[in-house]
Amino acid sequence: MNDPDPHERSNNLRVRCLDLDTRDRPLIVLRKDSPVCRAEGFVSHARVRVDSPQQSVVATLYQTGSELLAPDEIGLSTAAWKVLQVRDGQQVHVAHPHPLRSISSVRGKVHGRKLRAGEFDEIMRDIVRGRYDDIQLAMLLTAIAARTLDDDELYGLTDAMVNVGERLRWDMPMRMDKHCVGGLPGNRTTPLVVAIVAANDLVIPKTSSRAITSPAGTADTMETLAPVSLSLGHMQRVVERTGGCVVWGGSVGLSPVDDLLIRVAKVMDLDAEAQLVASVLSKKVAAGSTHVVLDLPVGSTAKIRSREEAEQLARRLCTTAERFGMSTDIVISDGRQPVGRGIGPALEAHDVLAVFQNHDNAPADLRQRAVRLAGMLLEAGQRAPAGQGTALAEHTLDSGRAWQRFQAICEAQGGLREPPVAERSEAVCAPHSGRVEHIDNRRLAQVAKLAGAPGAPAAGIELHVHLDDEVNSGDPLYTIHAETDGELGYAREFAGNNGDIIALETDA
Amino acid sequence: MNDPDPHERSNNLRVRCLDLDTRDRPLIVLRKDSPVCRAEGFVSHARVRVDSPQQSVVATLYQTGSELLAPDEIGLSTAAWKVLQVRDGQQVHVAHPHPLRSISSVRGKVHGRKLRAGEFDEIMRDIVRGRYDDIQLAMLLTAIAARTLDDDELYGLTDAMVNVGERLRWDMPMRMDKHCVGGLPGNRTTPLVVAIVAANDLVIPKTSSRAITSPAGTADTMETLAPVSLSLGHMQRVVERTGGCVVWGGSVGLSPVDDLLIRVAKVMDLDAEAQLVASVLSKKVAAGSTHVVLDLPVGSTAKIRSREEAEQLARRLCTTAERFGMSTDIVISDGRQPVGRGIGPALEAHDVLAVFQNHDNAPADLRQRAVRLAGMLLEAGQRAPAGQGTALAEHTLDSGRAWQRFQAICEAQGGLREPPVAERSEAVCAPHSGRVEHIDNRRLAQVAKLAGAPGAPAAGIELHVHLDDEVNSGDPLYTIHAETDGELGYAREFAGNNGDIIALETDA
Repeated sequence: MNDPDPHERSNNLRVRCLDLDTRDRPLIVLRKDSPVCRAEGFVSHARVRVDSPQQSVVATLYQTGSELLAPDEIGLSTAAWKVLQVRDGQQVHVAHPHPLRSISSVRGKVHGRKLRAGEFDEIMRDIVRGRYDDIQLAMLLTAIAARTLDDDELYGLTDAMVNVGERLRWDMPMRMDKHCVGGLPGNRTTPLVVAIVAANDLVIPKTSSRAITSPAGTADTMETLAPVSLSLGHMQRVVERTGGCVVWGGSVGLSPVDDLLIRVAKVMDLDAEAQLVASVLSKKVAAGSTHVVLDLPVGSTAKIRSREEAEQLARRLCTTAERFGMSTDIVISDGRQPVGRGIGPALEAHDVLAVFQNHDNAPADLRQRAVRLAGMLLEAGQRAPAGQGTALAEHTLDSGRAWQRFQAICEAQGGLREPPVAERSEAVCAPHSGRVEHIDNRRLAQVAKLAGAPGAPAAGIELHVHLDDEVNSGDPLYTIHAETDGELGYAREFAGNNGDIIALETDA
Repeated sequence: MNDPDPHERSNNLRVRCLDLDTRDRPLIVLRKDSPVCRAEGFVSHARVRVDSPQQSVVATLYQTGSELLAPDEIGLSTAAWKVLQVRDGQQVHVAHPHPLRSISSVRGKVHGRKLRAGEFDEIMRDIVRGRYDDIQLAMLLTAIAARTLDDDELYGLTDAMVNVGERLRWDMPMRMDKHCVGGLPGNRTTPLVVAIVAANDLVIPKTSSRAITSPAGTADTMETLAPVSLSLGHMQRVVERTGGCVVWGGSVGLSPVDDLLIRVAKVMDLDAEAQLVASVLSKKVAAGSTHVVLDLPVGSTAKIRSREEAEQLARRLCTTAERFGMSTDIVISDGRQPVGRGIGPALEAHDVLAVFQNHDNAPADLRQRAVRLAGMLLEAGQRAPAGQGTALAEHTLDSGRAWQRFQAICEAQGGLREPPVAERSEAVCAPHSGRVEHIDNRRLAQVAKLAGAPGAPAAGIELHVHLDDEVNSGDPLYTIHAETDGELGYAREFAGNNGDIIALETDA
């Protein structure tokens, strides 16, 4: 043995960016015959710690035998490259990851043990550092769903999710907020509610999500109207100047583990109530909200399928929010069909603009939902007496004050812009006459996604009918908007194979 | 729209092998700007179905923006390449996977519903087709651990694991088998038991595993003595000619989902009793065994930590085996320290040979465990009266008949060979005098793995002491064997930092 420290010698590797997009999961590639793989006994699929001079990350290792890499090189996926903040050719050090101690708490939960607040903190700290892989995240979420969380645990989980992220601080005593528990295409009330509330001199610093599996998140829609990727400081200046904002939550780092958990939960298609509550409330607590109105749409093809489910969820939301000193109002709303006409970022933005500008053809359902939610916040913020909030919200829209305030907010965020219009479109028509009996929110959203939403912002669906409308054979039911022939064709094919997305009852 | 079928046009891609080893998980890479990604709305990390003219697989998609691939090419990991059985440049078709219906049964289990046999069948069929990703596998295993399985469900799970694999058929009425519920380094009784039992004219068609996270599986050790990757037909000829065999289970396709489940369970570090029972018994049922002896070593650093745990596990094993018409004998054995001297494929093989050849220095503990297990099978197979099995097993070894039979088995499997000896070795010595009070099986196994086992078959540990031995300062406790300086150095470094792997009590 001549080399006194084979460990240090072989564990330093030159980085190389592989331009491989693995989303949020850091991935590294090493040569099978690299000294480090032999010395450390690394096999493919192992979890490996990588330290750059700047940062540290735990990544999944795949091995290659090919000329893709030299034996002393390490290939990094885009996510690993970003986290490690390296430049081409820089050295990084690889090693076995530290033992993941917090997983024993998760194991305890699997076996039915109640978890303490400190345990949730440890788990969330490990997750935010990327030390949980998909398997371990799935184990956590399944344990939470199978064993459920009691009130203390739910508070502990929510608080832990807040603690690993940024937290907004405000001088104003009241900060209004709203949230819709998803699943309803086109339900884009947020820009309207924010503008109405801010126009009445309340503060509403709103952060929103991008779509994860839906055709549009509020941040995607808002981005067709104004920039949404603001720094924390920029966001605070917008709110100080205009009273409101609609920015992408991801850019200000609130509850950063939430998107990771949501991605895994979506694959499992598991609605764990506790996780949903913690997900919603952690973002509100981190944003410093004091008064929140929560919209829970109920419908057979919405996220919440029954009134009982909604009431149970409402109870858990209120109880937990209260422990954070946050007051909540719950609206259990009709989730049987999409709201407004547009489904897709720009198409929804056009609906929002029509309501702001009091157009004759502005979607009445969207306006109605927005004034209801805004009205509750106006009452909670003592801008209107009980029962008068909706009227004040309507007046704020009618008078143009909401639209003025929205333009000011967009200007402060970086400039109002015109949402795009798609190059191609094609109508899907009624195969026979009848009354609209059922609309499948989920499959309609799928058509919008196949047409390119939200990646192509102008793509999506324009809905021409609502429940109980009478249509004649050949009347357009909805129009598919797309940027390319391929996407239009694919959406049309799916629509053709799913003729019952909009079900018509004949009067027979 | 000129093209009548954009779907078919853009979804056919030319394959290219990426030489990327992702173990059992098929992975594909597509250009972000490829028409299929746009048309299908595929994003990174999506699950995608790939059909070749020969086969179909569900794979995880990563995207690239680089020149690695052309827009009409698809890069395949080694696992995807193998399953699809393609040649370079061949066309494959990609699409959204069929909806995974069986996941709703898993969701039901998460929420506490009892699963029917048919549901386990569906789940296992989907898993064996690669349609469950890591997240879904973790969800299944966590649900089984959190909600447990009753006797019917455990039977259903085991039976479903058998049904998706090959099944051995035998003319002989009795087929003997043995299994050790792992976790004890060096406990390599299988070759001895097989030879003793076969030499007494019983049939024992043994399939064994390779190491997943241990320094050696029985198949790894046996491979240093004879070929183990036999076809089903070859295995059956070996057994017809010699009465026994020791082959790698993976090559004959028994209970093919088991290795996948074990890999995920290891990451979770979750010992789900039901999964363990199904894992062990599904392989025995598939092998057509009628009489099985099960060795459950108990020790604080073994897989089973307490006698209570072992008894509970024994009950579940026996109850379930009985429903398959299989009779079982359970041995709860001492698992406080490694068995024999060697830890690592070839080092363990040398121990086995020493016992076969009745060497003076043959490890007595290994011999003793082997004759005990073999004796039980000889009694079960009515080759010895009750209480006389061990004596017959000892006589079979002493007389050389076991060694003769083992040589015949190795010849029939493709030829007996001499296990290799490592190029490098270094002793780890006692820092002071004392009595051996504790041996940490897990960390000792880790030293063996860092030294290169099982990838380097000659690498591993040679243990010089056992519990209660008195040693003097400077006496060798164990010797590390390795093929390269790097591995030797790394194992030594870990051993140096873990001086208490073998704990010595001083007489003070």
